[in-house]
Amino acid sequence: MDKSVAVIGGGVAGIETAATLSNLGYKVMLFEKEKELGGNVLGWDRLFPTRRPAHEVVSNSLATLNSTCEIHTSTTVNSIDENNGIFNIGVISGQHFEANAVVLSTGFELFPAEKKEEYGYGIFENVITSRDLEQMFRKHGKPTMVNGNTPKRVAFIHCVGSRDEKVNRPYCSKVCCVTAVKQALEVKEALPDTEVFNFYMDLRMFGHGYEQLYKEAQMHGVTFVRGRLSETNEATGGGLVIKVEDTLAGKPMRLTVDLVVLMVGMNPRPETDTILNSLGLPKNEDGFAAVKDVHLDFTKTKTKGVFIAGACTGPNNITDSINAARAAAIQVHSYLNPQ
Amino acid sequence: MDKSVAVIGGGVAGIETAATLSNLGYKVMLFEKEKELGGNVLGWDRLFPTRRPAHEVVSNSLATLNSTCEIHTSTTVNSIDENNGIFNIGVISGQHFEANAVVLSTGFELFPAEKKEEYGYGIFENVITSRDLEQMFRKHGKPTMVNGNTPKRVAFIHCVGSRDEKVNRPYCSKVCCVTAVKQALEVKEALPDTEVFNFYMDLRMFGHGYEQLYKEAQMHGVTFVRGRLSETNEATGGGLVIKVEDTLAGKPMRLTVDLVVLMVGMNPRPETDTILNSLGLPKNEDGFAAVKDVHLDFTKTKTKGVFIAGACTGPNNITDSINAARAAAIQVHSYLNPQ
Repeated sequence: MDKSVAVIGGGVAGIETAATLSNLGYKVMLFEKEKELGGNVLGWDRLFPTRRPAHEVVSNSLATLNSTCEIHTSTTVNSIDENNGIFNIGVISGQHFEANAVVLSTGFELFPAEKKEEYGYGIFENVITSRDLEQMFRKHGKPTMVNGNTPKRVAFIHCVGSRDEKVNRPYCSKVCCVTAVKQALEVKEALPDTEVFNFYMDLRMFGHGYEQLYKEAQMHGVTFVRGRLSETNEATGGGLVIKVEDTLAGKPMRLTVDLVVLMVGMNPRPETDTILNSLGLPKNEDGFAAVKDVHLDFTKTKTKGVFIAGACTGPNNITDSINAARAAAIQVHSYLNPQ
Repeated sequence: MDKSVAVIGGGVAGIETAATLSNLGYKVMLFEKEKELGGNVLGWDRLFPTRRPAHEVVSNSLATLNSTCEIHTSTTVNSIDENNGIFNIGVISGQHFEANAVVLSTGFELFPAEKKEEYGYGIFENVITSRDLEQMFRKHGKPTMVNGNTPKRVAFIHCVGSRDEKVNRPYCSKVCCVTAVKQALEVKEALPDTEVFNFYMDLRMFGHGYEQLYKEAQMHGVTFVRGRLSETNEATGGGLVIKVEDTLAGKPMRLTVDLVVLMVGMNPRPETDTILNSLGLPKNEDGFAAVKDVHLDFTKTKTKGVFIAGACTGPNNITDSINAARAAAIQVHSYLNPQ
């Protein structure tokens, strides 16, 4: 088979799409702007709901990549044009590549926590993001404060850059609740004497194994408070004071803690916008790439020959991104081999 | 190609799997126990989040079914054995069919609302299920009481047979919150003078377009109360009295309404159990079919040659079921054509 496919973005969705298509015999070019394949999963230590090591998912996926697949890392795609069914893919260095079909799998980026200035990220050193916490788990197996001490009280703040019209992110990021519950449980397991609080709006534990994780966290003594953070400040004797409106008790709550973990949401990437603009493709209300049909064709775009998979279409978990990648791959195959 | 695949269950996942595989040239046999293909979607009037007609999704899917696909409706599969890579599929009539691969897409059934006796389904005639309401919308374009009157107050009860250990359903059914919000909005649109209340535990509006629907419902005057129904009774002057613990206000609440809509969850089907037992395949903690790998192989089972897609693996929306169906199809293709 001499037909070629360009896959833009080498996170789990892109790797899976490239693997599936290269194993079907297509000439696949996989473009990744970072030095390494793997995407956002590389920043994680362990994955919900099973808490398996994140690197396992990436390495298992990479192991299925056929050796014929051309991998272009450190390569940012900045234009795609179509002419008579041939796509011309331009990258930042000025090089061009040709392909018979394109799959967009450019993923997401984490909400920049400093945009919620009142939450104190970038101002107070013991205010960290969910990703920072994963890094701590990977390096030390537990969270630590900047001075090296063990935190005695940790607060997880859900919905940072999600369900928040003030920062123009009205949508739910889908995976932060279950990530927060997983991380809260992991803190309790690593530091049983540490008090752990989760401040949430709605606990969205909707997937297989999520409710069990929530129950396990409660059994380990994690405290769940329905309420939204209004601000973080420095406490007089050290530590951080957080002000939360407890919407169950109906009153404001103040709590002094040692570590604040902000559960940052998923944002569309500006690099995706560049590509969508170049192809004349629309975005949806949330700023992610619009799909052809939300029920029947979630892995097609409005342009023939341009397919799409993973979190560039909106917040997604790994399972659904991998299923979408395979769905996109079979649609590419049908497109290139009409019956 | 002379290889054959048996697809068990003709809801949206099964139709999509059969369509994809028959279009790839496989001999596909699609088994459906009901008289008609379409599954649970047939019971619905309109679908979240776009509120498109449900029949459109089924008919669009059916239109992609290749004419070579053998359709066996009114046919319940009750055994599958494997011998040297050939699967022998037995159906209730005693007939047998042979296939090189099997896809299980047996779907779910709705929680039987009468099991929550205290909620009054089957006891009070104006206590209905979410599916009953869809039928009313389809027939009359609006909800009506049994005496033909227009309800002046409607209460939606979330999590009926979900997140409820008392009825052995600890898991979230994933789609009932957004369905309830959609239906509440539809009631308000059809009957603007009717008061509409939604009693929820957590509002799990996690998908694309869900939060917008929630906002729209609030703008139309739907009242959302965080609380769980304890019981339904007949009011002295007619109507229904519901007792709810309002967990935001922290006090019990009594409300007289004309119509109670129970948002019934998704249950595993006993027919799936029969097939899993026959293949020696395990179930997961929630009683649905266990998958090979929750991250990497959600559409494979532990038995080589047996694949799986859709809500028989757990609660799922249509988009994800269709993506899973396509993912299963490509995995069947790779299995039958090893490179």
